[in-house]
Amino acid sequence: MIKKKFSNFIDNLQKDITSSLEIIDGKEKFKSEHWNREKGGGGLTMVIENGDVFEKGGVNVSKVHGQLPDSMSKMLKVTNSEFFACGISIVIHPKNPMVPTFHANLRYFELYEKDELKDSWFGGGLDLTPYYLFENDVIHFHKTCKNTCDNYDSNFYEDYKKKCDNYFWNSHRNEARGVGGVFFDYCRENKLMTNERWLSFIKEMGQCIKTSYLPIVEKRKNMPFNESNINWQHIRRGRYVEFNLLHDKGTLFGLKTNGRIESILISMPPKVKWEYNHLPEKDSEENSLLKILQFPKDWA
Amino acid sequence: MIKKKFSNFIDNLQKDITSSLEIIDGKEKFKSEHWNREKGGGGLTMVIENGDVFEKGGVNVSKVHGQLPDSMSKMLKVTNSEFFACGISIVIHPKNPMVPTFHANLRYFELYEKDELKDSWFGGGLDLTPYYLFENDVIHFHKTCKNTCDNYDSNFYEDYKKKCDNYFWNSHRNEARGVGGVFFDYCRENKLMTNERWLSFIKEMGQCIKTSYLPIVEKRKNMPFNESNINWQHIRRGRYVEFNLLHDKGTLFGLKTNGRIESILISMPPKVKWEYNHLPEKDSEENSLLKILQFPKDWA
Repeated sequence: MIKKKFSNFIDNLQKDITSSLEIIDGKEKFKSEHWNREKGGGGLTMVIENGDVFEKGGVNVSKVHGQLPDSMSKMLKVTNSEFFACGISIVIHPKNPMVPTFHANLRYFELYEKDELKDSWFGGGLDLTPYYLFENDVIHFHKTCKNTCDNYDSNFYEDYKKKCDNYFWNSHRNEARGVGGVFFDYCRENKLMTNERWLSFIKEMGQCIKTSYLPIVEKRKNMPFNESNINWQHIRRGRYVEFNLLHDKGTLFGLKTNGRIESILISMPPKVKWEYNHLPEKDSEENSLLKILQFPKDWA
Repeated sequence: MIKKKFSNFIDNLQKDITSSLEIIDGKEKFKSEHWNREKGGGGLTMVIENGDVFEKGGVNVSKVHGQLPDSMSKMLKVTNSEFFACGISIVIHPKNPMVPTFHANLRYFELYEKDELKDSWFGGGLDLTPYYLFENDVIHFHKTCKNTCDNYDSNFYEDYKKKCDNYFWNSHRNEARGVGGVFFDYCRENKLMTNERWLSFIKEMGQCIKTSYLPIVEKRKNMPFNESNINWQHIRRGRYVEFNLLHDKGTLFGLKTNGRIESILISMPPKVKWEYNHLPEKDSEENSLLKILQFPKDWA
């Protein structure tokens, strides 16, 4: 049963990722909080704060079910439906500005009418938001995603990379949130991909979270940085906040459907700055990043 | 001509308020930036940053006109219309957590069909967002607003106070952004209030900005504070960001209609924090504030 298998998988992935991150951090441990959803289901929120490497990080598992909320019924063009949704979502805000912020989620959704399964699909993705651009890191990140995709379909990476660039676009700033990654949704059973094969793809993507991101953290976590680097990191985190509160469908959906606020907004960066019309100097590293964010490029 | 008179009034008010704030600050001066709107009009953005009293403050005047944007045509249920809109908006984020954040705006809108004036109205309001509650300050603020309202109509204050509480409601947190003030919109000519009388009301509201807020700043700006007060201020500023990006119609309208980003987001606080599930201690001053924000009360 796909639902059970996926559900076990995300539980194990949460344990696996949080313990890997704790080892890298060396100082702080994750705190766990179980929560229940009034209308069905609940979750386990795990959070690390004020670590030596991770200033703030959240690894959430949620498994919710019940009557499909109105807003979603409209979107999916169904009536009187029930749903089951479960997923893992990860946001990591490192302390050192040379280490990029990381986001990933993997999710599975089932739709029922009168207790009968009517539809189901997988979704998810991973993406990277650097403050300083180390091209080799970005290439490594994208290539790791691409290799995983290529194990299943040679078109996946190109398709999902484009979807990611389109989704994480801060339209009011005319720039990308970060350097992208992959993003996929409505992955339904079809001739080429059975649900079991999708599950296997999703599981590999789960491993890809570790192989794509953790080596970058290890490589950059001890690099020197100064106050001006921190200032830039805090300003760029402002753009992250703007994206999440203005554009991110997951965040807005969660808030509109009375999701658990603190688990949803765990994605907010720990310290953020807004300066009026901050513009980096013309030939600076900061400005090179901005140029890249304005025109998403091919990395893999 | 109302338009011309209001337009002059906000120019003078901008000068008046910025110079009053500069005197109080004693260190920093406002920087001015003229900007043009591609499709008609422009504005003057004035900003103060890193002052001794004001960590960040913006006083914006904008005067824009042209074809009515689609989203607004829908809202106002008109087609093929032109508009003229001008206003002043003020957001002040003081450094000392004992001094509340302040927001105000005053605006005038005209709607045309085939060069003929079809409709016009005033709007605006002022509201206070404290980090620590000094009841006398809040009473002074509300009473000053009430006195100004009472000069025109004995029902205005009650009505506009309620509108303010309703508008500045962070629904996803189930709490008010601050302790309110007054908020009014679609103030059209009627039997009791001619446009000239509305203009006079608006002008008094402009003076009220100074008489309601500045004495509070003077009274609190030199109060001692510690790191823990600053931490609380930064966390509460996070709620301010959440309101402005999730709920504030003005901000969202500006962003959707390609307004000048930096002038719109001048309202963002300078330094902000998000901690996971931050809860103040039960009998703390911080917790007293939260209780007040959950149930807006009568102050005047």
